[in-house]
Amino acid sequence: MDSIGKYEFIAEPFHCDFSGHLCLGHLGNQMLNAADFHSTDRGFGMKYLMNIHRSWVLSRLAIEMTSMPEQYERFTVETWVEDAMKFFTQRNFQVSGNDGKIYGYGRSVWAMIDTETRQPTDIYDIDHGAINQWIVKDKPCPIEKGDRVKMSPNAELIRSIDIYYHDIDINGHVNSIKYIEHVIDLWDIQWFREHRIKRFDIAYVAETHQGDKLHFYREQTGEQTYCIRLVKTDQNTHQDTEVCRCKISFSTKL
Amino acid sequence: MDSIGKYEFIAEPFHCDFSGHLCLGHLGNQMLNAADFHSTDRGFGMKYLMNIHRSWVLSRLAIEMTSMPEQYERFTVETWVEDAMKFFTQRNFQVSGNDGKIYGYGRSVWAMIDTETRQPTDIYDIDHGAINQWIVKDKPCPIEKGDRVKMSPNAELIRSIDIYYHDIDINGHVNSIKYIEHVIDLWDIQWFREHRIKRFDIAYVAETHQGDKLHFYREQTGEQTYCIRLVKTDQNTHQDTEVCRCKISFSTKL
Repeated sequence: MDSIGKYEFIAEPFHCDFSGHLCLGHLGNQMLNAADFHSTDRGFGMKYLMNIHRSWVLSRLAIEMTSMPEQYERFTVETWVEDAMKFFTQRNFQVSGNDGKIYGYGRSVWAMIDTETRQPTDIYDIDHGAINQWIVKDKPCPIEKGDRVKMSPNAELIRSIDIYYHDIDINGHVNSIKYIEHVIDLWDIQWFREHRIKRFDIAYVAETHQGDKLHFYREQTGEQTYCIRLVKTDQNTHQDTEVCRCKISFSTKL
Repeated sequence: MDSIGKYEFIAEPFHCDFSGHLCLGHLGNQMLNAADFHSTDRGFGMKYLMNIHRSWVLSRLAIEMTSMPEQYERFTVETWVEDAMKFFTQRNFQVSGNDGKIYGYGRSVWAMIDTETRQPTDIYDIDHGAINQWIVKDKPCPIEKGDRVKMSPNAELIRSIDIYYHDIDINGHVNSIKYIEHVIDLWDIQWFREHRIKRFDIAYVAETHQGDKLHFYREQTGEQTYCIRLVKTDQNTHQDTEVCRCKISFSTKL
């Protein structure tokens, strides 16, 4: 089996925005699906890990796009493991069209946890370090690795939302893609008429549950770059905890 | 070509809820995708209609399910036109598993409009009434047609939300599935631990735009049946208009 997985998707109408281009969150979802298919086919997928009380946990995701597939367009997500260490693997993505046009790339960092203790576990414990045979060193992913998102205490609270049924996945907390969608929703259609998302970085820190409140603190850190801190208010303890941090860079539409 | 279209989908992890079952809104989306594939393959799809300034508009959708596909399960949506009149077509859906198990059914009513005048147009104008050759009279769809959702003026306002970027599709208004999701979000996970959605009816009346406010008025009309009126406050005129009406029936989980 090839070390690189290749999966075709279609830009479904209701996964496209007002401009008829695939939404970044839905693209992220297809990247995570591709990651899941790739690891399942190679013996270290979520379903297998469930049996041995392990799970992959997405720690960071960065998506950098030159353009986005249009409504009804078929696109291919290629994914491969660039590197694996004891506690983290780096998995990359390439998004291309049927004509070979490259739309963009993604980078992700995953930890493996013990689902009972919720503690990180050694990735090389799985099938005697089998992940090693799938590492691809020579496929380029020409976008930068995500840096830690640095924010000052001056970031401004610009929205608070409630967490509902549709935000929650089988793990009982807000799914990784919903955070991305809520962050992008901080900008309106008027903004997206003139700008497109060039790059989106997200680092996941803690979990949010249905009934919690989610607060968005935003700070402009560059001409077209914003950092967003997501803080939850726990419904039971009323304590505030940072749950993730994002950085979003726009470019002006021509 | 067969009059009945058959399309396979997968219950993606992030399209499943906390219980690991496909969310009804995502199933509805796959039904609409199936409708789109079916009509495109037979020469009366959205893309072709766009060229002649016509468009299908979903007027009503009813989904009635015995159970829901589970995470990673492959399921098939069959769709066919049950009837076509001058201004409306009736399109049905059957959802089944790979083992032939039937999960449930859907019924939908579509109008065709002129995209310039926004007025209904004669469906039989398209390709000399070509839709006639695709009508399937003998495939059963053993769920009731949707009745008009009757509500009293006593329905209670239980939530108001803002309409954001992700609610809006290429037509510039809230997409048909997002309404369903917002309505289902009126119930919490605790409720869904004990209940499942047996049937969901929605009738679309008017369009909602980004920046509008959406209000949910709810009324219990049966032991486990609720009707919901969705009213928008237009951001410019500040006028309230009914945009759709839903009826949702639950059954108690065993």
